[in-house]
Amino acid sequence: MPDFSIGVDLGGTNLRIAAITTDGELLDKVALSTKATSSPDEVIDEMCEAILRLTGQYRGNGTFIGAGIGIPGIIDLEAGVVRTSANLPTWRDYPVRHEIERRLGARICLDNDAKLAALGEQWLGAGRDVSDMAMITLGTGIGGAIILNGKVFHGMNGMAGEFGHVTVEPEGVPCGCGNRGCAERYASATALVRMAREAIASGQAPTLAACSDAELSAKSIYDLAMQGDPVAKDIFDRFGRALGIMLADIVNVLNLEMFVIGGGVSSAWDAFAPRMFKELSERSTIYAATSSAPPPARRTIITRALLGSDAGLFGGARLPAL
Amino acid sequence: MPDFSIGVDLGGTNLRIAAITTDGELLDKVALSTKATSSPDEVIDEMCEAILRLTGQYRGNGTFIGAGIGIPGIIDLEAGVVRTSANLPTWRDYPVRHEIERRLGARICLDNDAKLAALGEQWLGAGRDVSDMAMITLGTGIGGAIILNGKVFHGMNGMAGEFGHVTVEPEGVPCGCGNRGCAERYASATALVRMAREAIASGQAPTLAACSDAELSAKSIYDLAMQGDPVAKDIFDRFGRALGIMLADIVNVLNLEMFVIGGGVSSAWDAFAPRMFKELSERSTIYAATSSAPPPARRTIITRALLGSDAGLFGGARLPAL
Repeated sequence: MPDFSIGVDLGGTNLRIAAITTDGELLDKVALSTKATSSPDEVIDEMCEAILRLTGQYRGNGTFIGAGIGIPGIIDLEAGVVRTSANLPTWRDYPVRHEIERRLGARICLDNDAKLAALGEQWLGAGRDVSDMAMITLGTGIGGAIILNGKVFHGMNGMAGEFGHVTVEPEGVPCGCGNRGCAERYASATALVRMAREAIASGQAPTLAACSDAELSAKSIYDLAMQGDPVAKDIFDRFGRALGIMLADIVNVLNLEMFVIGGGVSSAWDAFAPRMFKELSERSTIYAATSSAPPPARRTIITRALLGSDAGLFGGARLPAL
Repeated sequence: MPDFSIGVDLGGTNLRIAAITTDGELLDKVALSTKATSSPDEVIDEMCEAILRLTGQYRGNGTFIGAGIGIPGIIDLEAGVVRTSANLPTWRDYPVRHEIERRLGARICLDNDAKLAALGEQWLGAGRDVSDMAMITLGTGIGGAIILNGKVFHGMNGMAGEFGHVTVEPEGVPCGCGNRGCAERYASATALVRMAREAIASGQAPTLAACSDAELSAKSIYDLAMQGDPVAKDIFDRFGRALGIMLADIVNVLNLEMFVIGGGVSSAWDAFAPRMFKELSERSTIYAATSSAPPPARRTIITRALLGSDAGLFGGARLPAL
């Protein structure tokens, strides 16, 4: 029987835990809910109980080699401490690695959730045939990660892959980071809703204006775009343009073989991909020259993620084996 | 006595060759001139004669461990072939590695000249205390290189580090690469002269207009800026803005400890650096948060290259030891 490990995806509302063999077979998956008001200790108690149940259950199958935990937010990887997390507001300077290791009596590995989603995609998803890739996660904002030689490339302090803050419009929309015109101000769920609200306010978007405020979402704007609504289509065109400019920049800087696009908003692919590819082809010679090169030349591949929300669980389970 | 290697910097007008110990001591340096009309075989003959003279001369000191050759242009590193080179127009699909190895009877290493300049700076120059850095070379265009773990990071096919084609103005000046608003359209010697010519054509630049066409150069525009000429100052302000936007992007993507700025135009530092740092601080949270962080936190360092035009020779000599 192959050995196994535990992958954990700790989110603001869900805590998901999976037992996965070192061959990549999913043995079991459990989902618990987290409350934003829970203390970190309460969440960790519940997580560790579930991990102990799973490791007890599958220990007969093979050796438990460790656990990898994906956490949203800023993590001091050397110290094993969560500095801040927008989705886990009570976790501030919390020594998460020490607290988990104390309860489990086992070494654990930590990383940012977007980094582990990329690691999962590289191990078992879209990137399974390459060792170097980047992943762009389109959600509320844009997350990013770089994988080199099958491992997360962290940079100096874990921040490598901040693709969402690449400037795509130097005098554009202000961003919370202090910059203007960051990619995620145009190519994220938040950006779609903002652009829709602006279109409604201009009085030029009758179909969008017919949506109630609660109905206005990335999904509803996508549905309208797919139905041919010109304003919704234009919003996704601006989304695709921004994403294409950002991708051209990172293709030119990194020259990797594969760029994987995931996250909830990547399901709107049909609405934004045509403009994204147009910009990318015009703006990156590397992409233009290598995207259609015949073998043995290696191609630059832009593709969709395959593992959905399980990517981070697989990435977490991969960490102890690296 | 330490072992030694040979570093070669092959340019469009100069062929420079150095014998350097594995400790980084320069033993000897020779400069030959190359003619654009010379055939590759003629240049390689002359280069190999000079290498053999040097290795013969210093063989008594230690073992000759190999030679590293820096070549401007597009090189197929696996095949050891120069595909095209703007500065060496007769070198097209030329099997340079095979031709040199045949003459020397020794293994040689090749890389792009900008990559070797970065490797030299990391070994013995600005980056000698870090293992991961990027270098931006400001010249006719913008060259770039990424060093990870003390080695050149090539990406999929040697093109990683194309910083000059990062988009800083999405609807800006067209670039030969097919994009618009590439960084090197604003932050290079070519860009300085173009912006000066545009200012002269507008009739609003009396001091620049007094320069003859032959006098108009990056150097003369710099001198005017330093003398307080408002138009020349504005040109360097636009240069610094573009470079700052580009740097913010690559700091956000790579999160490296050091970014080294070299190349001939980097000597205009005083004219462009204030605006560059202003843009960088406003546009990269990573830079803003880490550039002044107290120890033990690691800082993002932006600094000037130290080795000047010898960087590539040192980088070439470093290659055989890696």
